[in-house]
Amino acid sequence: MNRLSNTSQLLAAAVEELSMLPGIGAKSALRFALFLLDQPLENVERFGSAILKMRREITNCPICNNITDTPICSICTDGKRDSTTICLVESFRDLISIENTGEYNGVYHVLGGLISPMDGVSPSNLSIQTLVERVEKGDIKEVIMALSTTIEGETTAFFIYRKLIPFDIKVSTIARGVGFGDNLEYTDQLTLGRSIARRQPFNP
Amino acid sequence: MNRLSNTSQLLAAAVEELSMLPGIGAKSALRFALFLLDQPLENVERFGSAILKMRREITNCPICNNITDTPICSICTDGKRDSTTICLVESFRDLISIENTGEYNGVYHVLGGLISPMDGVSPSNLSIQTLVERVEKGDIKEVIMALSTTIEGETTAFFIYRKLIPFDIKVSTIARGVGFGDNLEYTDQLTLGRSIARRQPFNP
Repeated sequence: MNRLSNTSQLLAAAVEELSMLPGIGAKSALRFALFLLDQPLENVERFGSAILKMRREITNCPICNNITDTPICSICTDGKRDSTTICLVESFRDLISIENTGEYNGVYHVLGGLISPMDGVSPSNLSIQTLVERVEKGDIKEVIMALSTTIEGETTAFFIYRKLIPFDIKVSTIARGVGFGDNLEYTDQLTLGRSIARRQPFNP
Repeated sequence: MNRLSNTSQLLAAAVEELSMLPGIGAKSALRFALFLLDQPLENVERFGSAILKMRREITNCPICNNITDTPICSICTDGKRDSTTICLVESFRDLISIENTGEYNGVYHVLGGLISPMDGVSPSNLSIQTLVERVEKGDIKEVIMALSTTIEGETTAFFIYRKLIPFDIKVSTIARGVGFGDNLEYTDQLTLGRSIARRQPFNP
C-alpha cells in the first residue's frame, strides 16, 4: 500500500475507502478501484450518487422501523397485507429473508438489534416501546417472534414476551427443529435433542 | 431483488450499482449497501467523493502511460531511478506487482493492454509508438519485456521486439521457469519442459 500511495495518493485514498466494505481487504479494494478507474465517468458518477442518495434519503418507517423511501413503508401501506399480525425481526436483513420465502403476508416490526449488555445494547436502544404501543392500540391479534436462537435473541424474546403478556393477543415464535433437507447425522446435538422433545403429530 | 425494490427503490438502485464491481453478486452488494446505510453520513460522503475524485483527477503520465495525480508520474520524476532502463508492462496492476518486489529501480512503460485481434485490440490501441519515441531519443540502454506468457503476450512482445531491433539497445525478457517454492510434481508440463531446455549454470 505504501508503493501505491507513492504512485497515486488519489488511488490510495479510494482503495482505503473501498477496503472499509465488509469482507474486503486491500487486494480486492485495489481491484474495485482499478475497475472504477477504467469505467466511463458517467458510470462512476451514477455509482457514487446511487450510494449517497440511498444514505441521504432512506429513513425508517415510524410504524414498524423498516427502511423506507416514503413517509410510511411499502409494507405498512400495503392494503392487501394482514395488518393484525406482526412479525418481529432483528433487522431489515431478516425481514428480506422472510419476504423472500413468500410465506408471510402480515406486517413487520424491526427491532434494530438484540438486547446485549456486553455490547451496551439495552432495551431502550431498540424499538420495543413502539411495538408495545402498536399492540396497545388494540388492532393486533398476533406477534410472531422471529429472532435468532442465540443468548441475545432468547433474552430479547423473553423480555418482549413479558411486555406483551398484559394484552389479549397470541404471542408465537417461529418453529425450531431440523432443517428441511438436513442430514440428521450432521445436525448439532442441541437442535436434534430439542426437535425430539418438541416432536409434533405426524401429518402427511 | 424484486422484493428489495418493492421495499426501497433507493436501496435497490445502490445494490444494482454495487453489484457491478468485479466478483460481486447481488448478495454481497446488498451486504455492502446495508453496511453503508448504517454508517454516519460523513463517512459515506467521504467514500463517494474519494472514488469520484480518483476517477476525475487521475490522468496518464505522458511519458510512460502510468497513472498519475501530477502532470508527470512519480516514477518518471524520481531522480534516484535509472531512467535508461525501461520495464514494459501490460497494465498499472503489473507495474505495482513489480514495484512490490523491491527488485527494480528503473522506469516503466505501461502498454495499456496486449495485441488481441479477437478482442479488437490492435497495436495502434496500445502505447507502442510512445515507447519507440522514447527509445529513438537515444537515452535508453535496455527494454525489459515483462508481459504475460499468453498468445497475446507473446505476440505483443514479438511485435515490439521487431520495432526495437533498429536501435542499439538491449531487449530482454523476464526469466521464465519453475517458481520459487513450487513443487515439480505440480508444475505444468510446458513450464517444466521449457525450464529444462533453458537450464542455467548452477551458481550457488
